[in-house]
Amino acid sequence: MKINAIIIFTLLLSVIHAGADNGSKLWLRNAGGGSATVNFGGKMSPTISIVVDELRTQWKGGPIGLDLSTKKEIKALGADGFRISGGPEAITIASSSDKGLLYGAFHLLRLQACGAAGSTMDISESPAYQLRILNHWDNLNRSVERGYAGLSLWEWEKLPAELSPRYREYARANASIGINGSVLNNVNASPTILTKEYLPKVKAIADVFRPWGIKVYLSANFSSPKVVGGLDTSDPLDKNVRKWWKDKAAEIYALIPDFGGFLVKANSEGQPGPHDFGRTHADGANMLADALAPHGGIVMWRAFVYNPSSEDRARQACEEFMPLDGKFRPNVIIQVKNGPVDFQPREPFTPLFGGMQQTAVMPELQITQEYLGFSNHLVFLAPLFEEFLKTDTYARGPGSTVAATTDGSLFGQKISAIAGVANTGSDANWCGHHFAQSNWYAFGRLAWNHRLTSDRIADEWIRQTFGSDELLLKNMSDLMMRSREAAVDYMMPLCLHHIFSTNHHYGPEPWFSNPNMRRDWQPPYYHKADSGGVGFDRTASGSNAVAQYFSPLRETYANPATCPENLLLWFHHLPWDYKMKSGRTLWDELCYRYAHGVEETREFQKIWDRLEHRVDAERFAHVSGKLRIQARDAIWWRDACLLYFQTLSGMPIPLELERPLYDLPRLMKQPRTSEAYILEGNYYIK
Amino acid sequence: MKINAIIIFTLLLSVIHAGADNGSKLWLRNAGGGSATVNFGGKMSPTISIVVDELRTQWKGGPIGLDLSTKKEIKALGADGFRISGGPEAITIASSSDKGLLYGAFHLLRLQACGAAGSTMDISESPAYQLRILNHWDNLNRSVERGYAGLSLWEWEKLPAELSPRYREYARANASIGINGSVLNNVNASPTILTKEYLPKVKAIADVFRPWGIKVYLSANFSSPKVVGGLDTSDPLDKNVRKWWKDKAAEIYALIPDFGGFLVKANSEGQPGPHDFGRTHADGANMLADALAPHGGIVMWRAFVYNPSSEDRARQACEEFMPLDGKFRPNVIIQVKNGPVDFQPREPFTPLFGGMQQTAVMPELQITQEYLGFSNHLVFLAPLFEEFLKTDTYARGPGSTVAATTDGSLFGQKISAIAGVANTGSDANWCGHHFAQSNWYAFGRLAWNHRLTSDRIADEWIRQTFGSDELLLKNMSDLMMRSREAAVDYMMPLCLHHIFSTNHHYGPEPWFSNPNMRRDWQPPYYHKADSGGVGFDRTASGSNAVAQYFSPLRETYANPATCPENLLLWFHHLPWDYKMKSGRTLWDELCYRYAHGVEETREFQKIWDRLEHRVDAERFAHVSGKLRIQARDAIWWRDACLLYFQTLSGMPIPLELERPLYDLPRLMKQPRTSEAYILEGNYYIK
Repeated sequence: MKINAIIIFTLLLSVIHAGADNGSKLWLRNAGGGSATVNFGGKMSPTISIVVDELRTQWKGGPIGLDLSTKKEIKALGADGFRISGGPEAITIASSSDKGLLYGAFHLLRLQACGAAGSTMDISESPAYQLRILNHWDNLNRSVERGYAGLSLWEWEKLPAELSPRYREYARANASIGINGSVLNNVNASPTILTKEYLPKVKAIADVFRPWGIKVYLSANFSSPKVVGGLDTSDPLDKNVRKWWKDKAAEIYALIPDFGGFLVKANSEGQPGPHDFGRTHADGANMLADALAPHGGIVMWRAFVYNPSSEDRARQACEEFMPLDGKFRPNVIIQVKNGPVDFQPREPFTPLFGGMQQTAVMPELQITQEYLGFSNHLVFLAPLFEEFLKTDTYARGPGSTVAATTDGSLFGQKISAIAGVANTGSDANWCGHHFAQSNWYAFGRLAWNHRLTSDRIADEWIRQTFGSDELLLKNMSDLMMRSREAAVDYMMPLCLHHIFSTNHHYGPEPWFSNPNMRRDWQPPYYHKADSGGVGFDRTASGSNAVAQYFSPLRETYANPATCPENLLLWFHHLPWDYKMKSGRTLWDELCYRYAHGVEETREFQKIWDRLEHRVDAERFAHVSGKLRIQARDAIWWRDACLLYFQTLSGMPIPLELERPLYDLPRLMKQPRTSEAYILEGNYYIK
Repeated sequence: MKINAIIIFTLLLSVIHAGADNGSKLWLRNAGGGSATVNFGGKMSPTISIVVDELRTQWKGGPIGLDLSTKKEIKALGADGFRISGGPEAITIASSSDKGLLYGAFHLLRLQACGAAGSTMDISESPAYQLRILNHWDNLNRSVERGYAGLSLWEWEKLPAELSPRYREYARANASIGINGSVLNNVNASPTILTKEYLPKVKAIADVFRPWGIKVYLSANFSSPKVVGGLDTSDPLDKNVRKWWKDKAAEIYALIPDFGGFLVKANSEGQPGPHDFGRTHADGANMLADALAPHGGIVMWRAFVYNPSSEDRARQACEEFMPLDGKFRPNVIIQVKNGPVDFQPREPFTPLFGGMQQTAVMPELQITQEYLGFSNHLVFLAPLFEEFLKTDTYARGPGSTVAATTDGSLFGQKISAIAGVANTGSDANWCGHHFAQSNWYAFGRLAWNHRLTSDRIADEWIRQTFGSDELLLKNMSDLMMRSREAAVDYMMPLCLHHIFSTNHHYGPEPWFSNPNMRRDWQPPYYHKADSGGVGFDRTASGSNAVAQYFSPLRETYANPATCPENLLLWFHHLPWDYKMKSGRTLWDELCYRYAHGVEETREFQKIWDRLEHRVDAERFAHVSGKLRIQARDAIWWRDACLLYFQTLSGMPIPLELERPLYDLPRLMKQPRTSEAYILEGNYYIK
């Protein structure tokens, strides 16, 4: 009886364990069971300690020797690069730096977790971008702009005295995928972050991150000299202002010797900047760059600028920044969002990529799903990132991909970097949706190697996060790989863009119109739908934004017959009966795309439910609930957009398609606040 | 220019006309264009005037003579019967009464509207039931219990001085389909209706109805002698009470010489009745019958009785009434709901049909959709009515259909009658949903001729109400004929019953449980679902309600293998993995039925949308919006029921089926008031 009781208790425990997984371990599940001896002959460091520890506890490849080596001949791979070589008896990880060994160790453990560690190996890797940075839009009150996973990770009130164990976990997760920098605070920056009160808090975080190879950066408010410095101006050409920044830099570096630098959103959406003083972006960025240069810091200056008087927001970043090309200090890098408007489900690339050739340019991607269903929708973003990075800009002829224009290979910039707006928060599972973790993962992996394919990344992530069961891999990968196109289809097919509700960027509101609000914050500015047709004419007959692209793109995009259909309504205003390649009218094609998007979300539910007993019960139920929301929201999107556009097209929804479930007047009456959506994770039920 | 303007104006007018049809004309659209001469040699009467008028203005069969005749040899057809005979030159409508001519005239006009008037005709018709009565559950404050089409038609406050034109329109519509009686007030009756203040109001309505062959009846509150008569009891054996009713009858008949009689809901759901005084239903009914007999009036005594202490509500009407068979006066008729519980989407017939053989029994059908989606869902009820009337009770061997047990043909009762709970109200379209008009129509037609088939009735109704276009007929009929089974599938397949929200009978609430409420008002009383299975065991191992049926029904129903699957869970509690004829488990079968119900509602939307330009814009849009609600509600039903039952079955929804869109906890949190559903016509959006 006693033995039975113990057995039953043990069984119960294992059942409970099997059912309980809150996702907090992310893709790092190589727990325990290590069997290797780790040998290192060099100088110990906190980073080396981590490397030894990770390998010793997790490498399960048998009782072999793992040799760590910092050989000079590895220098060709760069500071972060590494080589893994050896066979069944002994494996060597070599790098010119401790950080390189860290990345090598995590790579080896990833290979193991993915069942891809060969019996003999000779793998050399070095990162595509020197700086692989997360941007946190986290405010000092712990709210997170466009954050859908709880509060900010940074517990400012408790810092520097108390250190959340999450700081280390965060750093480890980042290190495991090669991320080496974090901008801790929101680009809509509080000047307070630069005060004497806050810098020690920043230092405390930086100290935790350092052994994991993560540098800390801060978003700087351009008005800081005036607001917290007590000066009467923040003019970048003012001596006192320049001195203030120099002193501030020195103060920071005294605390954080490896501080990364500043990220600046200036003269954008109401933020202060050099234009306030009649200066240029170059004047502003260079002043900060001069302050940081002595310490090795950099300035990441955002090109996300637009003003409502322009006829085309998509043109403006180029219009403001192209004339400044070559006028920035070497330690300035221009941070440019992937698309010319704002992280839409699909956009063409911003033509500053390839356009600016005398200045370092870095892509800013958005990992958090501001425009992709928050943390309610399963949308795997690697395909979006990959599509963007691999698009050919033709800046120097064929092969001038966005990646090549930014990684230093094409233009030889001295700094190369890439940023992703983080989706992390205080939620147990970090990202709100278990699958949103894959977007953090994908960003890191692509920042390291932009030649990776999305399906490879998905496969890696699934194996590490959920397991390598064949059915599971096949279905989950299917789900992930179809998810972004599905979202495009049920939200904004054919490159419709920014027809989100103006207030929350979650649901559709293509009809929104408020004469007292900036036009460029309202959907009709973007869809231009009327009885004559739909879409934004950006050809010569319209805003001529096509002219910002190199040939042959500008010609390809300018002609509706050659423009890729998935970009069609970005560049063209076309009649509702325009004939598509499918043979359908444009209107019918829209109907089909929306219908397909809805069908896909229902398929996703089926695919997921096939995995019911192959995934722990907790994550299964959580994702299941989210997929229901997504399937409901897809219907909402379809009905709102089609019924609204139908008032203009006057054309019927093809009779073979599922009919709308909602009435337009009712949808138009919905509250437009985001709280309902976020708090309840649910639109229909407040 | 002038001519063009006129043409355009005329075109505009016709467009406006084509687009504007509020449905108020019901199935009576033979407007104008009459071309016949109507000849009548007998004594003129208000009814004959109507007949002449209807025929003269509407008969378009050419400039022929229509002869009306009241010949003696027609008497075989009964008072309401008629014969239509003749050819292209002259048609004769003959009847032994003016009313019969009225029905004959409307029949001829119906044949014309349906394109079914032959060049030579010899048609004899007489009604299956003598009394074809609408029950209005209308309160004196103009609210309507289970009414979903606005306020009551009867404007009590304005009566008797003001007569709404709707009284005549209502009477005409009823006459056109053979209905010859109306119980004006709710069975949950206010005694006030019998006061001196109200009887003149009733008389005013009766005067309007009379020429159309409609008799007025009233629901009588059994406590009236005490409440409005000032007596100290309402005991039916009390002399003063008996006198009060005799006097009241005389008073009524002095005002309304053709008053029909009383409908009584006694000792049911809190209403007073003879049991309050230790008397039987027979005592109560007979007392009223004695009061009415001298004037030719009847008592319709409802058998809708049940009390919460019983183990099976479905048994109780038989238990209370079978012992009284033969003890009622000849002018008493027992009014019995079609099913033993309460107007569910499907029930077996109440075994009082066929069971009571010494007493007249009349069916009570519900036209208003209390349990079938109110006026939001398109559910054509003729198939439900037809299924019921044609079911064989085997009371006197095969062929003893419910119809035969009630129409006098099998047991030779002197009175035959049928009642339908009306769905009319002050809405412009009378019934809330344009298609709900077809249920009023179907009731009337089946009350006249219970051998009619549902598809024939649908065809007739569509031709008269929407037109005879082939595509329209085919699609609309398809929609109507599939609608009842669809509702059964998305609400309560396999004869699940009464799992409605206790408070509003609109949405699902199978989980509802309140220990302080009558058990028999709560869904678990009916579905009996637990981990072992689902369904109400009414076999010998359970309540043994099957024993109330005649052989071979009792044996057929008692055996799950022979019980029709569409009645299965009414009679059996079966394990979730019980094997169905489809080869599926019971659980899977439930899942498939719910899924099919949802699919059907989506198909209905498609079918309807095919008719967009074949139906006037106003009715098209109205029905379109209703079908959207129905499609949404079907999902709600599916998710609520399957997710709740799944907590008990522990079985997965088959993977090939569309997954739930809602989460059970959220559905369970929904408000349970009906206001939201009715006022907004919409569940999700409050």
